[in-house]
Amino acid sequence: MFLRNCWYVIAWDYEIPADGLFARTVLNEPIVVFRTATGYAALEDRCCHRHAPLSKGRKEGDQLRCGYHGLKFDAGGQCVDAPGLDRVPSGAKVRSYPIVARNKWLFVWMGDPAKAEERLLPDNFSNDHPDWRNKPGYLHYATPYLLICDNLLDFSHLSYVHEKTLGGSTAIARARPEIEVLERGVRVTRRVPDVPPPPYYHNIRKFSGNVDRWFIYDFLFPGTLLMSSGGKLAGQQEANPANSVMLHSCQTLTPETANATHYFFQQSHRADAGDASLTEGIFQSLIIAFNEDRDMIKAQSESIARNPGAAMLPLGIDSALVRYRRLLEEAIARDG
Amino acid sequence: MFLRNCWYVIAWDYEIPADGLFARTVLNEPIVVFRTATGYAALEDRCCHRHAPLSKGRKEGDQLRCGYHGLKFDAGGQCVDAPGLDRVPSGAKVRSYPIVARNKWLFVWMGDPAKAEERLLPDNFSNDHPDWRNKPGYLHYATPYLLICDNLLDFSHLSYVHEKTLGGSTAIARARPEIEVLERGVRVTRRVPDVPPPPYYHNIRKFSGNVDRWFIYDFLFPGTLLMSSGGKLAGQQEANPANSVMLHSCQTLTPETANATHYFFQQSHRADAGDASLTEGIFQSLIIAFNEDRDMIKAQSESIARNPGAAMLPLGIDSALVRYRRLLEEAIARDG
Amino acid sequence: MFLRNCWYVIAWDYEIPADGLFARTVLNEPIVVFRTATGYAALEDRCCHRHAPLSKGRKEGDQLRCGYHGLKFDAGGQCVDAPGLDRVPSGAKVRSYPIVARNKWLFVWMGDPAKAEERLLPDNFSNDHPDWRNKPGYLHYATPYLLICDNLLDFSHLSYVHEKTLGGSTAIARARPEIEVLERGVRVTRRVPDVPPPPYYHNIRKFSGNVDRWFIYDFLFPGTLLMSSGGKLAGQQEANPANSVMLHSCQTLTPETANATHYFFQQSHRADAGDASLTEGIFQSLIIAFNEDRDMIKAQSESIARNPGAAMLPLGIDSALVRYRRLLEEAIARDG
Repeated sequence: MFLRNCWYVIAWDYEIPADGLFARTVLNEPIVVFRTATGYAALEDRCCHRHAPLSKGRKEGDQLRCGYHGLKFDAGGQCVDAPGLDRVPSGAKVRSYPIVARNKWLFVWMGDPAKAEERLLPDNFSNDHPDWRNKPGYLHYATPYLLICDNLLDFSHLSYVHEKTLGGSTAIARARPEIEVLERGVRVTRRVPDVPPPPYYHNIRKFSGNVDRWFIYDFLFPGTLLMSSGGKLAGQQEANPANSVMLHSCQTLTPETANATHYFFQQSHRADAGDASLTEGIFQSLIIAFNEDRDMIKAQSESIARNPGAAMLPLGIDSALVRYRRLLEEAIARDG
Repeated sequence: MFLRNCWYVIAWDYEIPADGLFARTVLNEPIVVFRTATGYAALEDRCCHRHAPLSKGRKEGDQLRCGYHGLKFDAGGQCVDAPGLDRVPSGAKVRSYPIVARNKWLFVWMGDPAKAEERLLPDNFSNDHPDWRNKPGYLHYATPYLLICDNLLDFSHLSYVHEKTLGGSTAIARARPEIEVLERGVRVTRRVPDVPPPPYYHNIRKFSGNVDRWFIYDFLFPGTLLMSSGGKLAGQQEANPANSVMLHSCQTLTPETANATHYFFQQSHRADAGDASLTEGIFQSLIIAFNEDRDMIKAQSESIARNPGAAMLPLGIDSALVRYRRLLEEAIARDG
Repeated sequence: MFLRNCWYVIAWDYEIPADGLFARTVLNEPIVVFRTATGYAALEDRCCHRHAPLSKGRKEGDQLRCGYHGLKFDAGGQCVDAPGLDRVPSGAKVRSYPIVARNKWLFVWMGDPAKAEERLLPDNFSNDHPDWRNKPGYLHYATPYLLICDNLLDFSHLSYVHEKTLGGSTAIARARPEIEVLERGVRVTRRVPDVPPPPYYHNIRKFSGNVDRWFIYDFLFPGTLLMSSGGKLAGQQEANPANSVMLHSCQTLTPETANATHYFFQQSHRADAGDASLTEGIFQSLIIAFNEDRDMIKAQSESIARNPGAAMLPLGIDSALVRYRRLLEEAIARDG
């Protein structure tokens, strides 16, 4: 059901305590994460002995001790001490997951560890780059992740769900996006010429009239959005940092279970175009807008769950999400 | 499982906002109701496109626009605008339900629209009649509606569940009701001679001694009670508005799902026998008593759910409910 | 699934009101308990008529009246009055359970009443004995009872779960228990020589150095622990009330359902070794420690429920619980 051979974000790096354990479920698998001298360890969050969650134990250096009967595991998942036994059975071990930190996101590899390659990490540069500033965000969704992918793949909803926040014009819904197939996802380009600037633009730059807006993003397996967006005075020839609003956003969806999703995101502005109050303002706008999304998608999800077999009516405006879902299904079929 | 070709009350008219949308589920089907220039519209509360609830959208005149991607529907359920598309596909529509307002109740027809006839509406006159006064009530039950029908069809419970409120005497339990079969339900006549007046009578009329009480009601498919009840001084020949307590009640049960029920009710007193404080007092008594019922029926329902196959022991006191359930089953078998 | 022909504790005697009804579910069966002139009655908590819980009715002397339609039952479960009927049908009855009070615990027999013998009651003497003092406790667990049996059968967890409360030393985990098979359970003897006294000992007796601790308990079907434990100055020859900490504990588990458990317990100190503040102090320590257990076992139970088929890894430290589970399975197979 899930694509397994790929990287999933399990946490922002700041979520992992210096001297403790951090628990989160990914693809139905409970995982415990902790820091080691050289990086991070990610283990199955279930003791092999009596299935107590290891995250209720404690970190002992680069190792973890179960809080129930005291079995101790190293960062690779091997049990190295079992109180009351002279010898630890070799079968006493838990699964460990490849884990990599890149630009403040911690990625775990949920498939075959031999296939875990860092070149497959998405280019989430703006998370942590001197030219860009942002405040990191996290939301929990009680809905399947694909419904949130759909939302991110069809920006026509901006005109309705975010009418008073991100949207500001029904012209977004009426603009036709271009869709290009990538090796592991799609690229969506949406240009919306000559519309009023959305309210939050005013905190970055005052425009004397309408703007041309653009949204250009890669949407990559399993559910990562990397987007350049912005606006310039309508009709003006070239956008550049001095005359435009330029933004970069990294967002990613990690299924917690079939019906719940972790959402990690940030929207960056250029470091030379605003101060900490702008960073905070963009973050607050995003939280409001993403709660609007979550509210709608939760209602949609409950509506679907009430009648799971019922057919939807595909429309032309769904082309990006239809294409992405088909590509993802093919990738899942090839997976493993 | 449910009788479909009949009218179900979906709301009191005052529940529908002047300029907004109202959502309620009937027979497992989520429905959105809104006012139009000529009355009301009731649509399936699920957009045909991506299944978002339409009730999260907005009313635009006599039409409704979905809040997710902006599809707009007319009062008949036809999509008349789809932003981003040049032409609306003819298949873009949602189900609409016949809806009728009668004496402050809004009725929807859940079966074949061609069979929706207004002559099948129950005679809920006292809801809205110059000779009668009441305050409308609504309760939500987390139980199957048939358990509440049972309750309304066997007033012997008044002596125990409502011992200190509506009841006032074990004589009610000991009185034998007469039961008459109607075209679409039963008529139950219960006369309880020479008993102390129940406490709430004191707010209407002081009696110098015991009273003769009567409860005469039609209980009609799917679960509507229309009742005349009252009391006169015991042994006195004729009841009339000047010497008696005379009440009329309209109550109706609408299944929300197999395990939950909407309960709409009012108990009217004569307009010439009391003021607004009496109206309010009767309403408050009813709320207390109906919460007593709900508490008991919820406990009963949970008890049944714990052991759903277990047989009940039919007793002579169950004759009205046994007869009603059988008639309703026959009607459901004929339905459609 | 459950052993039926045995006594289960349903309540502490003080839980049953003088003039009311007490409801608790045992082995999935809701039971109502009330006092009679000669002792207690325990009936199925479901009226035979329409399945309302009898515990929502009222006690009338040695009888109970249903609160819905007024049927009255005697202490043996026979219906003796049905308002509105001239004659009570002989089939109108509910199940009654043998119930015995012994040392403040009320035991019900869940199997064949003909097999209910008082000699099968556990020897819970310290609950109510002039030489011992305690405060009774009750906790509800949202977990299967066998996971709590496991916990009580492997005290190695004291070193980790109760590191800062009951435990105080990893030596407990490293000590090997002796296990002896009894007719209806096992006897576990665990001696832990030369360890620091646990914190709560200080309230009973000051030791000048390390202590030798012992835990000797019978663990009897279905889940009753009867334990003598204590400590004396390390190396000293004989323990006696004047030089040692001596404790006696009675604890018992009663399955409420397959996934929930009632836990009744007390830990007694000798009446000659402390006052009411010691009794209260021991009780408070126990509550803290038992909440530590409950927290861990709930986490373990949720972990197991997430992946119910997954195999556990048996270790040498599990011998008591493995043996007890096998004996109990054999007893259940023979049961009935």
